[in-house]
This record gives sequence, structure tokens and C-alpha cells, in this order.
Amino acid sequence: MQKLRINGDRLWDSLQESATFGGTAKGGVRRLALSAEDKAVRDWFRVQCEAIGCTVTVDAVGNQFALYPGRSGNRAPIAMGSHLDTQPTGGKFDGILGVLAGLEVLRTVQDARFQPDSPLVVVNWTNEEGARFQPGMAGSGVYAGSLPLETVSDGCDGDGVRFGDALSEIGYRGSACAGRIGFGAYFELHIEQGPFLEAEKATIGVVTGAQGCRWFDLRVTGFENHAGTTPMHLRRDALVGAAKVSLAVHALASAYPGKAVGTVGALRVAPGSINVIPGNAFLSVDFRSPDAAILAALEADLRKEAEIVAGEHGLEIRMERLSSHAPLNFDSACIAAVRRSAVARGYTCRDIVSGAFHDAVNVAKTTPAAMIFVPCKNGVSHNEAEAATSEHCTAGANVLLDAVLCSVET
Amino acid sequence: MQKLRINGDRLWDSLQESATFGGTAKGGVRRLALSAEDKAVRDWFRVQCEAIGCTVTVDAVGNQFALYPGRSGNRAPIAMGSHLDTQPTGGKFDGILGVLAGLEVLRTVQDARFQPDSPLVVVNWTNEEGARFQPGMAGSGVYAGSLPLETVSDGCDGDGVRFGDALSEIGYRGSACAGRIGFGAYFELHIEQGPFLEAEKATIGVVTGAQGCRWFDLRVTGFENHAGTTPMHLRRDALVGAAKVSLAVHALASAYPGKAVGTVGALRVAPGSINVIPGNAFLSVDFRSPDAAILAALEADLRKEAEIVAGEHGLEIRMERLSSHAPLNFDSACIAAVRRSAVARGYTCRDIVSGAFHDAVNVAKTTPAAMIFVPCKNGVSHNEAEAATSEHCTAGANVLLDAVLCSVET
Repeated sequence: MQKLRINGDRLWDSLQESATFGGTAKGGVRRLALSAEDKAVRDWFRVQCEAIGCTVTVDAVGNQFALYPGRSGNRAPIAMGSHLDTQPTGGKFDGILGVLAGLEVLRTVQDARFQPDSPLVVVNWTNEEGARFQPGMAGSGVYAGSLPLETVSDGCDGDGVRFGDALSEIGYRGSACAGRIGFGAYFELHIEQGPFLEAEKATIGVVTGAQGCRWFDLRVTGFENHAGTTPMHLRRDALVGAAKVSLAVHALASAYPGKAVGTVGALRVAPGSINVIPGNAFLSVDFRSPDAAILAALEADLRKEAEIVAGEHGLEIRMERLSSHAPLNFDSACIAAVRRSAVARGYTCRDIVSGAFHDAVNVAKTTPAAMIFVPCKNGVSHNEAEAATSEHCTAGANVLLDAVLCSVET
Repeated sequence: MQKLRINGDRLWDSLQESATFGGTAKGGVRRLALSAEDKAVRDWFRVQCEAIGCTVTVDAVGNQFALYPGRSGNRAPIAMGSHLDTQPTGGKFDGILGVLAGLEVLRTVQDARFQPDSPLVVVNWTNEEGARFQPGMAGSGVYAGSLPLETVSDGCDGDGVRFGDALSEIGYRGSACAGRIGFGAYFELHIEQGPFLEAEKATIGVVTGAQGCRWFDLRVTGFENHAGTTPMHLRRDALVGAAKVSLAVHALASAYPGKAVGTVGALRVAPGSINVIPGNAFLSVDFRSPDAAILAALEADLRKEAEIVAGEHGLEIRMERLSSHAPLNFDSACIAAVRRSAVARGYTCRDIVSGAFHDAVNVAKTTPAAMIFVPCKNGVSHNEAEAATSEHCTAGANVLLDAVLCSVET
């Protein structure tokens, strides 16, 4: 068979067309999960898939599966996908590229009148972003069995609307049992959402795994008092404790250059008045590393540091672990298929570990999987300024095409 | 004349009775300025004053003046006072002691059938706390000419109610021009709201002045980015900058033990999400010192520190001064009258500089003034747990009585 090649212009046009559903004045996209915009883009996606002979089914959590038939009736389909929902002020590429590149793979296969051995599937996973309903990565989580459907269905948005009701309302509560369709392999193309590929002028990131991640919240209790009359040495200032812990998070992660990150994203103090010493502070901590031992050390060291700070300032500091995800390695055969394709096509590439969560991290729990990254401008994502070039999107889609067809034939 | 002596039990009973207006389940008081509770305690205060022959007038900002006639028709009255409004979860003593000790001085004078040369006045200043309407110290500020009446009248509470309308509503918009009555001297008794008197077992604080105070807000601008994918060395984390500035405020003030305090009371970050590097942070700074040179140095050093932090982390930090009050010295003759009385009565006493703002700080701009402090339990104030002993309240009122009568006779 002659080597197939993605139609880059058609892929780009589809990306631009999809961005009209919830498009913003600043060139971004606002398409919250299960919103009217999400329904519209789902309807549009179904029409595109059906136009090339796919059968589109929807499962109980709203995941859309577009099935392109294979020659053999009993082989597990090879799957591609990502998500079409966005952050409140999101971009045109995060998630969307993975779904529409999958669609473009099917269109390319159909153009060539090629019928693969295995069926091919493109999935649009429901609510990856978690911006409207918590938790995120919900569709792939239910698919992989790591999230109960009931938990997801009963989640409410900020206006008290149930996920399950919103799903019914847009007509995307499907009858298919989530997770019923097993895949032979799963590939997800995504923008990097980080700076490494761009900095090294690499076109393709061969994603070998995903960082581990631990989330914490810390509550600092001091004593609320008058800012004018309480001498410095008698204070039990919760904000001073929270500031020291925040800087410890930054310093601890910085001690493992390129191997760990640590972030305090949320910090609140009470009562929060200019002339009152804060009696209480709350902060969140996000530690990530591809190395399980480093993650464990970061947690242990932060606990020690918090104890020291509490002792120094007469505070109580309670540190609670909210979640823990071990570092994940993708399937070695799937990774090899991605790397082989990138090299064969002459794209500059490098191995990379995903810093962010993706649906592939869930799917990999039950399916051989890997991911392909392409650069995004300045590493910026979750932002209306998110940008990627047509060349990079095309290259990523070609690698996706090759990896899928290679998996079909093995 | 035989030396007069305060009736401590009567003073204590009045303090307890006043605490029933807005009394809380935890033994504190909620009596926001111009509320129904404030009206009730004002009405009660007027009745008490009229019962001993006072004439009670109200000025345009709602200050109540209870005038006890003197022998001479043309001498300026000697004034006492403080405020009857409280914090939302305030105590029974903050402000109230100064007003009711003034009332007790008048009762004691009346019991003795003593008519002083000058008239005596007890003032209940409107809205000292600033808890419902900003700014606080409003009544004394308008009296002293440092706040325009229009500014105060047009201020709105959290529900959009205008100060001027609320004042009319409770019937306390008086016809007298604020500031028309000049005083010969002004004395304010108050709980210390700090820990020094209690720690040194001193009964009376001879208040020689009030600290200077400068307020700032700082806005830190960094770059919002993904917490999982952005390496530590490429971050421009606004919260890291805010934490460093907060610790600098603490360290700079701590370098002047007993001579300065520094507080970051408010700190907010945006977007405030666990997995997003904060792009923006806002913090408030409150510096106080009795020494003008130290205050100036604290500001200059913090500006330098902020610049260094901004440079280190790729941030922009804007520091804006919100207000500046120079350190204030009370009138030396008034201070001497307070000290002489405390010594003569055999009370342990020490000189002290007020860490907090009080109405006397405003009044002192136009009138010879001083303050008297008595200890409060654990230095706690602005809290339902605020407490002072009957012995200390009585001692403070005796010193107030002596200082006033000494001023009458000079």
C-alpha cells in the first residue's frame, strides 16, 4: 500500500470551523462541558463522522465513539481521541486537535478507499476540563472504571445543575454502557501545553508517560489580633506561616531541576482585613514528578518544613493529602510506533513526559496507549492566546495516522 | 474640697446594662454604627445624662454631647468621651468604658453637689469602628475638621444604605454644626487593646501619644500558567513574589523590637486554582511606629525589597501608599495631669504609646488632649472575649475624674 498522508489544509479548516462553536472575541473558545456550545460541536462532529461512513454511538456518560468499520469483524478497534470541551477562556487546540486529527485520519483512510483489518474509532471524551463540573477527565475516568458513573452524574455545577440532568438536557445521555467497547490500542495527539518542544525546535514529542502528582491542602491556624497593638514577638500570624510554607514548596521542587514542579495555586487568609493579624490561612499544594521517589520525598520534606514553621510561629498547620497519582508509563509498543513514525517522516522529535493530565492517562489503565505532542506557542494553554501552527498540527496528525495503521497491521 | 471618688459598682453596673443593647450569646456586643441597637443605646445614654441635669445635644454627624453646667458661663468645657458603637463581634469595653466612665465622673460630681468652674462634657462619638460604614473615626474626624461631613454622609454600607440616610432614620441627625463646641481639654479612657499593661502588672497606662501609621497596597503581576507543565525556572509566580514581600514586612518591622509593627492583613491571588500558577496577587501592608524616621525607613526598605523580589522572579510589583498618619504626641499638660493622678492614687502606672487609632487622635488636632489606658485580658479586643476587671475600670475612671477636675481648676 502506498504511504498515506494527512490533508493538512482540511485538518486546519476543521480546527477553525470547530472554533466557531463558542468562539470568543479574543480568538479563543468558551465551550464548557454539556453547555449549548458543547451540544452544537458534538452534533457537528457526528455529522462529519457519519459523512465518511462512521457509526456514531454515545455511552452513558456522554462519550462519543465514531466507528469506522474494519475488514475483520472480531478485532478490537484501534482508537484515537481527546476532548471537545474547553476551559472558560480556552483555546482552539487543547483537546480539539486530538479529536479532529482522529477525524482527519479517518478521512485520509477513506480517501484512499483503504479498509483496515481492525475497525478504527475516534472518541470525544466528555468533560475533560473539569471547569464546569468537578472532577475533570470524567468521561475517560468512567470509561476506564476509575470513576463511578454515579459520582460523575451527581456532580453539580456552580448553579446547582446536576451533570446527569445537563447531559440529558443536551441529548447526550447514551444507552451504551460506558467502557463496553475495548480498544486494541489508543493514541492521543495533543499540544504540549509546555515550553520544551518549542525551545528545542522539536516538531514531535514522543510521550513516554505522565508525571505523578500529589495534591494537598494546608490549614494554618494562628491567632487573630490587632495589627497596631500586638508586638511582633507575641504574634501568631497565620499568613507568615502560609508564606513560609509557600516558599518551601517553591524551593523543594526547585531542588530537582527538570524532575519536579511544585505550585501553591490558591491562598486565602481570614479575616483578610488590612489592620487585623490573620488568624487563619488556607493554601493548596500541587507537586508533580515523573519519579515516584522524588514525589514521596517532596511530601515528606514539606511535612517537616510545615512542622518547623508551626513551631517557630506558634501556629497549628494541618496538611491533608487530597489525591495521589503515581507516575505512569505508556505502553512500550505504542511509544515505539510513535517514535518510529516521527523518525521515518523526518520530523525532529524528542521523548517527553506529560506534565498535565490527559484522557490517555485514564485510558492507559485498561488499554495499551501512548500520546503524541506538538509544540504550542510560548507553551501557553488554558488561555485564549493558545496557538499552534498548521505545520505542527499536520505533522502530529501524520504521526497519529502512522501509529494507528501500524497498530492495525500488527 | 474633699477628694471625690468614683462609685466603681455603679460604673460596672452601667457597663453591664449597656451591653444588653446588642448583647450576643457569647457575652460580646454587636452594635454597628447607626443600627437599631446603636439608636437604643444612644437613647438610654441620653436618659442617664438628663437624669443628672445634663443637656444633651446632637451635631450634624450624630455625635452626642452631654453638657453638665459649670459656674462660669464663658469657659470652654472640659470633655471626656469615646464611642458606643462596636465591631460586629465586639466586646463590652472598647469605647464604651470611655463614655460610661465620663458619665460616672458627672454622677460623682453631682453626688458631691460640686459645680466646677468650667462646664463638663461627655461625648459619644459616631461610628468610631468603621465596621459598617467606612471610614471609621468618622464623628471625631468631622468634629476635628479632618473629614468632610459630605464624605461621611455619602458613605454606604454593604447593603448600599447611605450613612446620612441611616443617621436620619434613627433620629440622630442633629442640627448643631459639628465642631462648633470647642473644648478646653479632652480626656479619653480606653482599654489598652494590647498586652503591655497586663504583662507588667500596671493598672494605668499614661498615654503619651499614638503611633504613626502608613497603609499600602501592593499588586504583583506575573504570568498565569499550567502548574504541571511549566518548569520552575521559567515561572513568573505572583504568589511567590507576594510571599517574599509578606515575609519582608514581618522581618523589617521585627528589626525594631518594641518600636515598630508590620502586618500583611489581606492577601488574595488570582486565578486561585490548585493547578494554575498564580498570575496576580494583591496584598495590604500596615506599618506603625511611634518614630517618624523608622516609619519612613520601613517604607523605603520595603520598596527596595519589592524591587529585588520583582527582579528575581520576573514580576511587576506596584506599591501604592493608601494613607499616612504621622506619630502624634498628646498635650504635655494633659499627660502630666493623668500621670500625677495615677501616682497620687497609688496606682502602678507606665507611659505607653497607643498602637491603635482612637477618637482622641482626631480631637488632639484641635484640642489639648490625652488618654488613659487600663489593662484588658490577654490584650484581646475586637472580640467577644474582650474583658477588663471592675478594679481596673474603677481605677481608670478615678484617674479620669482627677485629670478633668485638675483641668477645670487650672
